[in-house]
Formats: sequence, structure tokens, C-alpha cells
Amino acid sequence: MADLIQPRTLKGFRDYLPELMIPRERLTEQARTVFRSYGFVPIDTPCLEYAEILLGKGGEESDKLVYRFTDHGDRDVALRFDLTVPFARFAAQHIGKLGTPFKRYHLGPVWRGENTAHGRFREFWQCDFDTIGTTANAADIEITLVIHDLMRALGFTRFAIHVNNRLVLNGLLEELGLAGRTEALLRALDKLPKVGKDAVCQEMAGQAGVSPAQAERVLALAQTQGSNAEILDRLHSDFGGNARAAEGIARLRELVAVAETAGVPAGCLRLDVSIARGLDYYTGTVYETFLTDLPSIGSICSGGRYDNLAGLYTKQSLPGVGASLGLDRLLAGMEELQMLHKVGTTAPVLIVQFSADRLGDYERMGRTLRGLGIGTEVYPEAKKVGQQLQYAERRGFKAALIAGPDEFARQVWKVKDLARREESTFPAEAVPAAIRAIVARPEAET
Amino acid sequence: MADLIQPRTLKGFRDYLPELMIPRERLTEQARTVFRSYGFVPIDTPCLEYAEILLGKGGEESDKLVYRFTDHGDRDVALRFDLTVPFARFAAQHIGKLGTPFKRYHLGPVWRGENTAHGRFREFWQCDFDTIGTTANAADIEITLVIHDLMRALGFTRFAIHVNNRLVLNGLLEELGLAGRTEALLRALDKLPKVGKDAVCQEMAGQAGVSPAQAERVLALAQTQGSNAEILDRLHSDFGGNARAAEGIARLRELVAVAETAGVPAGCLRLDVSIARGLDYYTGTVYETFLTDLPSIGSICSGGRYDNLAGLYTKQSLPGVGASLGLDRLLAGMEELQMLHKVGTTAPVLIVQFSADRLGDYERMGRTLRGLGIGTEVYPEAKKVGQQLQYAERRGFKAALIAGPDEFARQVWKVKDLARREESTFPAEAVPAAIRAIVARPEAET
Repeated sequence: MADLIQPRTLKGFRDYLPELMIPRERLTEQARTVFRSYGFVPIDTPCLEYAEILLGKGGEESDKLVYRFTDHGDRDVALRFDLTVPFARFAAQHIGKLGTPFKRYHLGPVWRGENTAHGRFREFWQCDFDTIGTTANAADIEITLVIHDLMRALGFTRFAIHVNNRLVLNGLLEELGLAGRTEALLRALDKLPKVGKDAVCQEMAGQAGVSPAQAERVLALAQTQGSNAEILDRLHSDFGGNARAAEGIARLRELVAVAETAGVPAGCLRLDVSIARGLDYYTGTVYETFLTDLPSIGSICSGGRYDNLAGLYTKQSLPGVGASLGLDRLLAGMEELQMLHKVGTTAPVLIVQFSADRLGDYERMGRTLRGLGIGTEVYPEAKKVGQQLQYAERRGFKAALIAGPDEFARQVWKVKDLARREESTFPAEAVPAAIRAIVARPEAET
Repeated sequence: MADLIQPRTLKGFRDYLPELMIPRERLTEQARTVFRSYGFVPIDTPCLEYAEILLGKGGEESDKLVYRFTDHGDRDVALRFDLTVPFARFAAQHIGKLGTPFKRYHLGPVWRGENTAHGRFREFWQCDFDTIGTTANAADIEITLVIHDLMRALGFTRFAIHVNNRLVLNGLLEELGLAGRTEALLRALDKLPKVGKDAVCQEMAGQAGVSPAQAERVLALAQTQGSNAEILDRLHSDFGGNARAAEGIARLRELVAVAETAGVPAGCLRLDVSIARGLDYYTGTVYETFLTDLPSIGSICSGGRYDNLAGLYTKQSLPGVGASLGLDRLLAGMEELQMLHKVGTTAPVLIVQFSADRLGDYERMGRTLRGLGIGTEVYPEAKKVGQQLQYAERRGFKAALIAGPDEFARQVWKVKDLARREESTFPAEAVPAAIRAIVARPEAET
């Protein structure tokens, strides 16, 4: 016998077993349903692209995280490391045919050779949705509504979408003559919660050459707090004199008003001037989403408005706004909050194979139930009934159907409620209703 | 301005635009629904694995089709070229935890550096479903039922599942003392429709050292034709003397009987001794599925029974049976049969943005309709109504909702049926019912 090969996956890669893959599929389907309900359309792009497309002509420091190699045709290729860069290439190539505004969602795996120390994976799924080809605030507002409906569809009631608009900060920096120093200032501001106001002022003075008076103004903005209405009023009185900041404030005001009229509960939407989302990419509205009961996992849906998606590939300006749902993070969060009901089956009903020569009858009953939308598995072997029922319980089936010679003679079926361990006998035609009553019962009541 | 990078995909790779991605998502969802209805559970495995896992310790001629490279950690890795090998590795690794029988489905991209001359792609999706850990014929029969229900769910009524059992041929070859020459004989038999009986006999004599009498017996089997019942009777009388062949015939007989009892129309299932599905891998039932109106695209769902899935990785014997749905081929076939209704939107309703200051009301109506399960897009800009309606028609929306100052004053909405080009006015509370009537109408009646 030949030596066996050790079955294993690469470091940072993993299998999804059914108990985690079933909820992952449910989650992605719920997300797709919400995207579609707003008219976002699905696209797909290749996992493998020219390295030049994914990394630009230079190829920066990010390169070392990228899976890049030479293919059989001597092409310099790489696995995509996000869905944004492929979308930019896609938009440059097809937008003429697609027309604008164009609203797309895209779910798929991406690869990064990350350090795996902190439970990071090297292959993971992203889930992006964007509207491109319009600067209208309606698109920014809609992203908020989509995030809200997504969270509700996934079963969350306690969450908050934090919203800011980079125009306010950009306007202020422009006014202070600090527009070129945005990055350094953002880096300093990021440390505010950790090191406090004085240390941030010092860093601003040192790194970005900012005067104490300028630093004071920037910190005043970063520290604006209160209810949504209070924040809007303070921003307006403190920074509304600058045209760019005023536009940002007006867009935030409209966002809050429209979301309220559209029926988003006030507590779900929070203006938060402390969020900036990275460095220079975002130019308008920015979003982060936190679970009230699990803030530690960070934002699970983030994004923002950008001025130009596809500048590397086309001269056509494509402004847009979008966000990305952190599928793996969300799944981990739902697991921690015990929101995942883990089962080993996708079908709630098991038909026991009592007599091998009755397989046709078992399969016919199976197809009857499936035709009514009730998932039904027929056990493949005529093992002892007890063994088959053990299998059913271990996998998490809700009901079992049993019929042997006696039952076939009387044209009845035994229906077993596996959670309550109750058994009743029904005429064949009454089985679907009896099964439905068991299957439809929420988990909590079993 | 920096030079632009030409936006393009690699040869053999492609983007899915919405008009093709919308039906592809629908197709995969229908497939998942059928798999789940039988209790098959989803799994996922990494796209990237150790080359040794995917190719075995040697690494054969198939290597040149495989995307293989050295990663940052100096590992010899490769992109998966099918879903069967990763499933074998997965099963060897996890079957102890999962238990048997184990029924899984797996959808995902695979990569092969194929010649692209005949419209072949180098990245394409596979869709596999298998039951492992049992030799029971019930599992083989169930695969037939799944294929049938799949085809029906996808909208096909005119198709045939061709079924054979390799045990019959294997039994005959064993009896003739030709068991070691199966591969050569299958290669010769494959040419029967093209080159005729005499040429095949000659090749058998030459390549496989078969006597004329032996060749006659093998050809008699390969040429067995008639109704399912006739084929079963002829096989039984001609080859039933061999125990192995008799088992194959009995399994086919039970398959036909159970499928009929379970409600599969007789015309959908055809015994066909001419199909063998490749060379040595399959050991029992084999399946191919053809579209009656498009036989030229070949089998769109194929598979069979195998003796041992994971012998490369574990000493535990894992027999199984399964099949693979050719998603891309099926999609191409549906396109050719004009079964794809191509649209550029996932939502049937467009709310026209007539007055920018009424965005909240438009979004509220949108959320009302979405809450009723009716996908609704709000146009992001207050452009001319005609332009917005043009957008709606081009994308394939079914209905448009319009409300300006007059309508808001009277608390009514204009409902426009875009296919019929009819417009009516309804009170706000009557809008959902009016929209539902338009949206629910089949395409053919518009």
C-alpha cells in the first residue's frame, strides 16, 4: 500500500463544516435578498487577474500580502486581495454598456498572506455593495437604509450605524490652510481616545506643523458630541462658515431626516464625528456599524463616499458610495451571541427506512413533503430503527416518520416529534399537516 | 496625469455582468433549494491547497493544467482544479466528526489552464453533490431523484436522465477473463457510434488482445437497446449468469421501480448501457443527463458510484455516489433555448424622484413595498421624469411610481405599468395591491 498523504489545509486557510456553512449560506442569502430589494444587481469578476491591474504599475508595500505568480503563459498574475480594485477595473471596462447610476453587489473570496496570529485568515469572503455614477446624497442615504435593513434581516435589533461626513473635516482643514496635512492629522486624531487631548495637540504640532490655535479647532470638531440634532447644530454654528463643511453638514442633516421619515428608528443611526475610515480614499459620507452587545468585534459594516473609483483605468470620472459587510466577523459575532442555531442537516424531517422493500413508498412520501416545501431525507439503509433515530437526533432533525408492515397495512404513519420525544399515528393524508405543525414550531418552544 | 492601465481580464477568464449573473444566482439558488430538500448539507473548502494534496505525491500529466506556485512561506501550493479531490481530503480529515452517511453539496470556482479554443474557460464554477459512507442502492436512486427535481426546478420538462451500472460490464469482463483490460476496451467501445461495429472489433483484438467471440459478447452488451423493461430483461437473460453483472442488473431494476413509485415520469429516466463515464473511477451506477431540445451540448449533470473516495489520505474506506451539475454549460443551454429572461435589475419597481425635497416620502414608500417582498429602487437624482422612465425601461423594471406636489396634496400616487405603457392613479394605501398586480403578471402576458 502506498504511503498516505496527510490530509491538511494550508496555514490561514480553513474548511467550512456544515454547522458553520449552513449559517454562512443563510447569512449571504439574507444579504442578497436585502440588496436585491433595493435594486442592487449582482456581478462577478475573476479571482485571478493581471498583477498590474490589481497592484498598479508600481506595485507597493502591499505586494508582500498578495498571492502573485507567473502563469503557464508567462503572465504576471495575482489573486485578488479585495473586491474594490476588481470593481474599479470592471467599471472602467463595462460602464458604457451598463449605464449610470449603477448599483452592484459582489460576494466572493479574496486572499491576503496576512500574519495569522490574531485569528486572521488568508482566504476570506467579502460582501460589497456600491452605487456609482452619481454624487446624489440619495445614494449615500440609501446605503444607510440598506445597512439598517441588512442588520434587521440578520436578526439584530441592538446595533448602531455611525455616520460622519469627511467634508466637514476637509473644509475645516482647508480653511486653516492644512489641507495638505490631512493624513498626519488623521493619524494624530486616531490616538485621541488612548493618549488624550494634550498628547494629540503635541503630535499635531510636531508631525504636522500645526499651531496651538489650529489644533484647538481641529480637536473641537473631533470632540463634538450629543444627540444627532445637537451635533448638527454645533457643527453648523462652529464650522458652517466654510462652504465645504456646510455642504457636509447639510448632507448629514438630510440623511438623518430622510432616514427618520423612511422609518429607521432614531437609536439605530448615530452621527459620530470621530470616525474617519482610513486615510485619503473617502471624501464624503462614511459609515461604521457596531453591535450594541458586542462592541469589541469592531465595525461589521463600513464604507463611504469616494470621488473617483476607476481613475487608474479610465479618464471617465466615476464617483460612488458603498459599504462592505464583514461576513466572517459577523458570523463570529453571531456565534458569540448564540444567535446561530447549529444543526447538521438542512432538512427537518427524516423518513426511517424500516423495510428495504418499501423504499419506493418512503421516497414517494419524501417527494410529497418536499413538494410542500418541507425538506425530507430518507435514511439510505434499513438499519435498526433505534440507530436511525439516533442519527436523526445527532444531526438535529425535528421529526421522524416511521412505517413498517403494520402501518402500511393500516395506511398510517408514525410521526415522531424528536425534540419533545412524542409519537403519534396519522393516516397518510394527514401526515403533511402533522409534520408542518412540528417543523414550524420555533426552537424556543421545543 | 499618469498613464492609464488597460482594463482587461486574463485570457480564459471573464466578468459576469448582471444580465448573466442574475440568472446564474437564480440557478444556484434553485439548485441549493433542491439539495437541501433532500437533506444534503453545504460545505466549503479552500481554493488554494498544498499541491501534494491536489496532485498526489507524483504529480501527473494533469499538472500542466494546474495553477501551481510557491507561496511566501515557500510552500508548494495550487488552485483546486475540481471539487472532488478537495472533498476527498475533507472527508479523510473530518468524517470522524461528521459521521456517516454524509451527504454534502459544494458550489465554487475551480481553475484549469485549458486551451481556450472551444469556448472553454480557465475559471469556472462546479456544483457537486454526493452521499458517502454507504453502499446502499437507496443513495444511488436518490441521486436520480435529485437530478430529476433539479431539472424540473430549473424549468426543464423535456430532458432524460441516462442511467447505467458498470457492474454489468465489469462482471462480463471478469467472466471473459478480461478484467485487466477494462480501460482499453472502454476506449474502443467509446468509438462505436463513430466507426461502427467491425472497426471496434478490430481495435479490441489489436489493442486489448480480445478474441472475436469475446468481442462479440462485449458488443452485444454495448448494443442492448429497447424500453427500460426490455433492457432489464435482455441484460438478465444474456449476462445475469455472472454474479457481479446480476447485482448491477438488480440495482438498475430497483432504481427504475423506486423512481416510478416515487413519481418520476417514465420518459425522464432511460437505461442506457452505452454510457460508462470515463475510465476506472466509477464502479457502479453512472448517470448522464441530456436536454431533449439541445442534445448537442452534451450531458449537463453526470456522475456515478465509486468504491473509495479518499484512499490517498486515509485507510478508512469511503464508498459513495454523486453527480455534478454543469452550471456554465446549463446556463449556456438555457440562453440558447431562450429560457433566460434577461434584465438589468433585481427589483421590479422604480420610484421616480420627482421632487428632491420629498426623498423621505419616496424612501418610505420604498421600504413599505420592500417590507411586502416587492423589490423597489428609488432613483437617486431628481432628473427629468422622462429620463428616469427611460432608465426604468432600459433596465427592465416592470412598474414605476410617480408622485409630485399635486399627488402629495391629494395623497395619491401614479402607478405606471411599463410593459403595457398604462398609467393609473391610486390612493397611497392602494399602491401595494396595484403594484403587486403588475409585478405578479408573467412575462408572456405583458
